[in-house]
This record gives sequence, structure tokens and C-alpha cells, in this order.
Amino acid sequence: MHIDIITVVPGLLEGPFAHSILKRAEDKGLASIRVINLRDYSTSKQKQVDDYAFGGGAGMVMSIEPIARCIEALQKERTYDEIIYMTPDGARFDQPMANALSLSQNLLILCGHYKGVDERVRERFITKEISIGDYVLSGGELAAAVVADALIRLIPGVLNDETSALTDSFQDGLLAPPVYTRPAEYEGMKVPAVLLSGHEAKINEWRFEASVRRTQERRPDLLVSKDAGVSDAESYKK
Amino acid sequence: MHIDIITVVPGLLEGPFAHSILKRAEDKGLASIRVINLRDYSTSKQKQVDDYAFGGGAGMVMSIEPIARCIEALQKERTYDEIIYMTPDGARFDQPMANALSLSQNLLILCGHYKGVDERVRERFITKEISIGDYVLSGGELAAAVVADALIRLIPGVLNDETSALTDSFQDGLLAPPVYTRPAEYEGMKVPAVLLSGHEAKINEWRFEASVRRTQERRPDLLVSKDAGVSDAESYKK
Repeated sequence: MHIDIITVVPGLLEGPFAHSILKRAEDKGLASIRVINLRDYSTSKQKQVDDYAFGGGAGMVMSIEPIARCIEALQKERTYDEIIYMTPDGARFDQPMANALSLSQNLLILCGHYKGVDERVRERFITKEISIGDYVLSGGELAAAVVADALIRLIPGVLNDETSALTDSFQDGLLAPPVYTRPAEYEGMKVPAVLLSGHEAKINEWRFEASVRRTQERRPDLLVSKDAGVSDAESYKK
Repeated sequence: MHIDIITVVPGLLEGPFAHSILKRAEDKGLASIRVINLRDYSTSKQKQVDDYAFGGGAGMVMSIEPIARCIEALQKERTYDEIIYMTPDGARFDQPMANALSLSQNLLILCGHYKGVDERVRERFITKEISIGDYVLSGGELAAAVVADALIRLIPGVLNDETSALTDSFQDGLLAPPVYTRPAEYEGMKVPAVLLSGHEAKINEWRFEASVRRTQERRPDLLVSKDAGVSDAESYKK
């Protein structure tokens, strides 16, 4: 998978893509990410990419011209599965969307900044608008990094152990069960005995039940949309 | 506001906090963020902070001992309003939560990585569990950066123009209206005439109506929970 990200604050994305899983995926040749500085496509001396909003009001708006030049130049190199705009009024990103997008070959992500992009950019170029949640950030950069991370970890071979992603929250419509590691007792707090029993079937059963209980307590909405009864303790093997 | 963030991948957070709004808030003395490397609190030679999960299965679990040492050391310096754990099964982060948390003096955010933290960490230390959305990331670092960004931009004086945050999506239960900037016409695509009229009342009315329409089309759930009729075009002044 290749992801191009257009931004006016490329530095914001340095850390996320130089470390951890994304770096590992790049090193393994499983994914590549390129951060593109929108200012390189400005024709003004000051490398301006924004301007005041028509109609007045607070906040600058990103102009269509540099964005159009940038996207059109990139489209000469690649055909994109989707041209994504990160925006709080987009479709809400979730695990099924991550699963679907993780099958893409080439993605282009445009990060809004300031008050957002000129509406005509969205009409002309954008094929998918995504929001990572119902809150406002100072720009789309962190949102783009979140999407890139969520997609890339799903590519087979990126995680050390592929089954790791399958037992994540949401993959089966349930929250993950509690996890424990050594020591078995910490200041009087003990690990549930069943997890120390070595009895695999009982452990799977305990995990499945803990998972359902946690989902009932914290996110009953997930159980309404998908009948948890369809799953069974079997799915908690590994 | 001061935010301490505990992580095993401090490099992931370098970019976000060295650039853009967060950097500006620090420079203005309005916010400070410290990234704490959990490995500094490991007593093992290899600076290990995780171990295999009790009961088997894929993925490593972060141990309670280094986390306990780290949090207890930090608590000697500061009293935290909340000790937050970023986790997909936490309460979903949204704008009202961001508004409330933005009034905090001191926050501590623990980033999970690998398969998450030992459940006893959550029972003993965590006062608030937050999820930024229904998807799984390779760690809590990007999620912590998202929360920090959303909070810090709300602190008065951080944004260049304070009214800018007030017209964001979600602040009044509506999505933001489309925005436009020069040129007034781009390859046949014109800016709505009213925005060029200079007639402030009409512009406010247009924006309010566009905002309601966009919310109806994209997020009718926001209108159900809050009666949009309560707002009026007045609120779109500025």
C-alpha cells in the first residue's frame, strides 16, 4: 500500500511515520508513505496556500489552486483508489472502514488546516470524506496519521503476529477482554486464577464471557447492531 | 494546562508537539506537554516494560510495575485532575468532553501499546478511560496527541482568533457550513453569490441554513439529540 499525504505542516507527521509500526512496515516493504508539502505547489512568493473566507468571519480557508496543482501532479504518477479529505463532517472512521481501506493500493489523503479547504476542492477532487470522531482538531494531520496507522497495521506481515489484530476490539463486534501479565500478584491484586490454569478451553471461555460483559457494560450499542450470540468462545482461541 | 504523557515510543510524539498549534501554545506559555519514556522506570537491564499475557495468546501486555513506579513518581510532583488511559474500550471522546477537559490544570495520559496494559493498572491508577473512536491503533500515542490537540486549541489565546473555535463543527450541535476563498470563479465553479454580497445578515442566514442542511444530510443524529431550532442565524455572526 502506498499513501500520499498532502499537508501544510509536514513536520507534524515526522514523528508518527519515523517510528513504530509505520516505520517497520516501510522497512519491510509492505507500505510506503510520502508526506507532500502543499506549499511546494504555491505560485506566490510567500508560498501562500490560504486566504480570507468569502463572506467574512474568523479563520483562513485553504485555496483551491495550489491543491488542484498538487493533486493533478500526483495523479500523473499514480491512480488512487480514493482521494480522501480529513474533515469533522466526513463519514465516521471505524474498524469496518479501516478493514475495507486496508485493501487499497494507492491512497491520497488531503489534510485540512485552518478553517478547512475551499468547498470546490471537495466537489472536484475528493472521493471520500472521513472524520476520526466528533471533535475538532487544529488540522487533519493527526487524523491522517490515525487513519494511516489503523490501515497499515492490518496489512498481513506488519504486526509480528497476525493473529494479534484479529483479537482486537471491534473486529468481532466486541470489546477485547482484560489482559494480565506478571507478576501474578501485585500489592494484593491477583490475576484471575483461570488464566494461570493452563486449561485452554476454560481460558477461551473466560475471555469470551469477559469480552461480552465488558461490551454490555461499556458499549451496549455494539451488541444491538451485531448479535453477539453469533460469535462463540471458539473465536477466542489465540 | 500541563499534560504529562507516558509512552514506550516517545519518538512518535516528537512531530506533533514540536509543530503547529501545540508548539505555539507552549511558546505563549499557555500549555506545556512533557513526554515521559516509560522505559526510564523499568528496573530490568533491557529496560523491558512488557511481558507475555497470562493465559497465552498473541500480543505483549504492559506490566504494572514500571507504570506504577512512573505514575507514583509523577504524583509526587503534581496533583492530576485526571489520570487518563487511551483505550478503544474507553468512553468516546467528543467535543463536550474536550470542552470539559480543557479546563483541567494537570492531566496525565498513559498510552497503551502492544496488547494494552495489565488490567490492574486500570483498576488502581486510571480515573478516566478515553477512546478517540471505534477503531484500533498500534498504540495510544496518536490518540493522546489527538486529545492534547483538541484540548489545547480550546484554551483562550491559543488560536489566533478566539471566535474561530466557536464556529467549529459540533460546538453548537451542527456541522460547519461550506467555506470559500479566492478566486470567486475557478474553472467554471463559482462561489455562492450571497457570500460576495457584503450583506452580513444574509450571509449569516445562508451559513446557518447551509449548516443545518449539511447536518441533516450527513449527521441527522446530531439534530435528534439537540433541537437545532434552538439555535438561530444570530449565532453565525462572525
